[in-house]
Amino acid sequence: MPTYQAPLRDYQFVLNELLNIYEESELQGFDEIDADLGDAILQGVADFATEIMLPLNSSGDVEGCKLLDGHVIAPKGFKEAYQQYVDNGWGTLTCDPEFGGQGLPEVIGVFATEMKTATNMAFAMYPGLTHGAYAAIHAHGSDALKQKYLEKLVTGEWTGTMNLTESHAGTDLALLRTKAVDAGEGFFAISGEKIFISSGDHDLAENIIHLVLARLPDAPAGVKGISLFAVPKYLVNDDGSIGDANKLCATGLEHKMGIHGNSTCVMNFDGALGELVGEPHQGLRAMFTMMNQARLGVGVQGLGVSEIAYQNALIYAKGRIQGRGLSGVKAPEMAADPILVHGDVRRMLMSQKAFNEGARAMMGQQALWLDKAERHSNPEKAKEASKLAALFTPIVKGFVTDRGFNACVDAQQVFGGHGYIHEWGMEQFVRDIRIAMIYEGTNGVQALDLVGRKILSDKGAALMSWSGLVKQFIGENMGNDQMKPYIAGLMDASGDLEKATQFIATNAEKNPDILGAASMPYMQILGITALAWMWARIASTAILALENGTTEIEFYQGKLKTATFYMNYWAVQTRSLRKQIEASSEQLTQFSEADF
Amino acid sequence: MPTYQAPLRDYQFVLNELLNIYEESELQGFDEIDADLGDAILQGVADFATEIMLPLNSSGDVEGCKLLDGHVIAPKGFKEAYQQYVDNGWGTLTCDPEFGGQGLPEVIGVFATEMKTATNMAFAMYPGLTHGAYAAIHAHGSDALKQKYLEKLVTGEWTGTMNLTESHAGTDLALLRTKAVDAGEGFFAISGEKIFISSGDHDLAENIIHLVLARLPDAPAGVKGISLFAVPKYLVNDDGSIGDANKLCATGLEHKMGIHGNSTCVMNFDGALGELVGEPHQGLRAMFTMMNQARLGVGVQGLGVSEIAYQNALIYAKGRIQGRGLSGVKAPEMAADPILVHGDVRRMLMSQKAFNEGARAMMGQQALWLDKAERHSNPEKAKEASKLAALFTPIVKGFVTDRGFNACVDAQQVFGGHGYIHEWGMEQFVRDIRIAMIYEGTNGVQALDLVGRKILSDKGAALMSWSGLVKQFIGENMGNDQMKPYIAGLMDASGDLEKATQFIATNAEKNPDILGAASMPYMQILGITALAWMWARIASTAILALENGTTEIEFYQGKLKTATFYMNYWAVQTRSLRKQIEASSEQLTQFSEADF
Repeated sequence: MPTYQAPLRDYQFVLNELLNIYEESELQGFDEIDADLGDAILQGVADFATEIMLPLNSSGDVEGCKLLDGHVIAPKGFKEAYQQYVDNGWGTLTCDPEFGGQGLPEVIGVFATEMKTATNMAFAMYPGLTHGAYAAIHAHGSDALKQKYLEKLVTGEWTGTMNLTESHAGTDLALLRTKAVDAGEGFFAISGEKIFISSGDHDLAENIIHLVLARLPDAPAGVKGISLFAVPKYLVNDDGSIGDANKLCATGLEHKMGIHGNSTCVMNFDGALGELVGEPHQGLRAMFTMMNQARLGVGVQGLGVSEIAYQNALIYAKGRIQGRGLSGVKAPEMAADPILVHGDVRRMLMSQKAFNEGARAMMGQQALWLDKAERHSNPEKAKEASKLAALFTPIVKGFVTDRGFNACVDAQQVFGGHGYIHEWGMEQFVRDIRIAMIYEGTNGVQALDLVGRKILSDKGAALMSWSGLVKQFIGENMGNDQMKPYIAGLMDASGDLEKATQFIATNAEKNPDILGAASMPYMQILGITALAWMWARIASTAILALENGTTEIEFYQGKLKTATFYMNYWAVQTRSLRKQIEASSEQLTQFSEADF
Repeated sequence: MPTYQAPLRDYQFVLNELLNIYEESELQGFDEIDADLGDAILQGVADFATEIMLPLNSSGDVEGCKLLDGHVIAPKGFKEAYQQYVDNGWGTLTCDPEFGGQGLPEVIGVFATEMKTATNMAFAMYPGLTHGAYAAIHAHGSDALKQKYLEKLVTGEWTGTMNLTESHAGTDLALLRTKAVDAGEGFFAISGEKIFISSGDHDLAENIIHLVLARLPDAPAGVKGISLFAVPKYLVNDDGSIGDANKLCATGLEHKMGIHGNSTCVMNFDGALGELVGEPHQGLRAMFTMMNQARLGVGVQGLGVSEIAYQNALIYAKGRIQGRGLSGVKAPEMAADPILVHGDVRRMLMSQKAFNEGARAMMGQQALWLDKAERHSNPEKAKEASKLAALFTPIVKGFVTDRGFNACVDAQQVFGGHGYIHEWGMEQFVRDIRIAMIYEGTNGVQALDLVGRKILSDKGAALMSWSGLVKQFIGENMGNDQMKPYIAGLMDASGDLEKATQFIATNAEKNPDILGAASMPYMQILGITALAWMWARIASTAILALENGTTEIEFYQGKLKTATFYMNYWAVQTRSLRKQIEASSEQLTQFSEADF
């Protein structure tokens, strides 16, 4: 059974040393937290995740959810664990204090999410979706709606869902058919079928608030005619108590590759009563405002599962003995050497470690940008942060879940045949995390969002902002001899990224299809360069700590070694990616259907 | 539910046009086959695979195997389908005519395996393992043993297994503990526990012949003290009839990520009677002689499952409508365009196609080398072919299953959310094929075999032989204007491969651990270059057909377009791989355990 050690020291490193979040004086609410408080919260989540969530991960996968008489039963132990989650207030961390939240910044919340996902991704999705519903109503709901729902969603006494997808309408929500008709007294009757609804029904909470996209009768065609409704499983009386059952139910459970502990439902709405969230026909816009946040949530799943997979692969590699080191016997007292002596096992593990720690720093950076966008006292700086967060959203979601999946596959590989067997837990990690590349916009959609909306639409303004930060960092550090290898790696990658961007900018106008064809390698080249930026900054922070006489010499030297490995082994991929973008994107657009 | 169209036209292309197998006059038995016979056999297997095996693939996955009272029951329908397989004689294709086989070459057999694996990998493993047991006894068994077992194994009336792995001994068989003691009359009593035994027990056949690695009492330590035994589930009487149950049984079924329809057993031998296959203490050597064959069999699984995944992803991409093309509406009569218009969907599909067709050509080439090694009338040429086959074995197994897995993940991605749901079949392909990267020597072991045994040990002789073929091809075609882009791609890749080889040769002596650290990117760089060679040859063949006025213009032009895509998009990866090898291999060897 897998074990887990929350990477608390690495969180401290990212928060206190790399990002210096406790010195952010211009961010609303940041003055109320300090390192002790941040550490204590993360320690609390770590304990809950490790002691309560992790033991239910494998059993939840084996047992799965059951649909009985229109009601879904979560796996054994989930209900009790969820009650404890609510009692401990873990759902309230980053929510608005006005509704019972603790008002903590996202840059702390994101790491709480990492630990929850690492230990039990399926379980973590129940509060995860609840937070999404909370955020939608908080951002767009009327005061009455907020009063009705937010406190219960903040505590988690009630949970939430997002009902977007229909069987024929996934990426392209313009095609959706679910209808909403006026039912008087501010209510609308919602009818239609939704699929792939995570946490759609379950027995963990007494009510479920479904956020549902549907069309009003007078709605314009396409995406400009979609409205968002809050539709409770049980109607809520004026005094806040739970009333009659609403006309909706789960009609099926999807048979999935993984995340079996989460109830992924087919939902049927048959004139169910709901209320508008935001303005009529503005439902998709409401979804979009929450997108950066939601995609960060999925990206950090890629990191979380990759982290626990890595930890267990490392333990296995230290304990499993097979064969002898190529340069001679390393453990003469044993019948064979631990497989950690083998170069290819090292390659896999060091790649996972370099990805995880780099991605963790990137998640922190992204969360801090989101915090700045929302909380910075200077509107210009808030706007700048918002722009950077929008640019990085597809990277954080698409690039990180792609690489996180690969890291899990490698971690499974370290186990050899045992990696294929359920009892060891590794194959579940691979099955679970696979969904993160698909939901909340497939990674192909992320890549297209990146090249289309984030690079071309604003004529590269956001990219230039970020490149400015990279160039500034290079300028400040290139005189430092110790920083030379990291700066060199970062400059190489940046140079390839710049040429790739120029190619796209030059060619997309005459052939817009190039954008799609080049989008995935472009997302990869930007993601790799962004991680090179993170690793160069990590190296700089580590060098400073060593110069200042830290006692944790091994920790900081480890950061430098891993940074070197990242630059030498992963950052060098930008060269081939640039060639892929330049040479093939035009060609890909020219294949006829018969050519496939 | 997935569908399947056997790629019969592509088999014809590889067999008749690319490899010209029907013109091989110096290969024993090749004069007995012609294109009509080859086509008819492959058509027969195609029909059986599509009509009988494919319908059982999903149900076999859902139902899995059951262990009842020490006996394993295969999923519903498997027993009847297997009986039909035996009745049709599909197991006999490449077996020795002396024992009831048809004596067909491997270059035809390999494509039969592709179709069987594509349609039902779990089912295909029952005859697959049987063929392994047949081959071991055929190559190393005494005449008496051959008489006793081979005919039944050829027809498939009895099935076979390979019992190598123990819980503490997988890659490193030197550690195995299963014992064999003399029991008189030529028998040995085998005692021990084996794990991960594919097709270990089942109800498809009346007897199962287990090939078991075990130690004799006087055995030297390590791999030089392992002997191979044939241990039947039911003892066989002198008249060939089935006698008493032997002292062995399946004590458990492994809970696996995939291939649920195949019974992967924990086998307990408790003084079970068996006979030596080959000489005492020579068991591992016996295994090695079958290795090229067995690893080709696993490699072709990577191709087969990738092919069916691709076919279904393409069908889905043509039928599923979401969004509009970036350069404008492509299907105005519909509410949205088919997703095949989107560049990133095209990238995934064209990558799968380029991999599949290139790998299919490579499988054919490898099988033909194996045929030449065994059947060529000129011993020198047989030896040369044997050398090339040994060199390509890790590529065919390790590189092809790695890429085949990635292709399946991409095919699943094309389906979006539906790819994650069992009913569509794509997630099963990913789960099933994952094992091919692990068993028959993990892909890390393949990579080490490549750099250690196949490149360094013979001082690059095999690699130079193959490079000679590449250079000869380049020389013959570089004057042809139409071949220029393919020759250029092949030369670029070959140049990187050459430099990577030089780096390893130069540095491995002073630091042997470099071999391990560089092994995986080296296997990739050689695999990519080998596929570039295949694609350049395919292009040359296609150009010739077009010059000769073929009527299948679309088919051959499609080959040229795909070849161009391969060169531009995939062959360019060699540059980054070379950098990975050069820059990081030394570093990876220097991390201490605490650095991970």
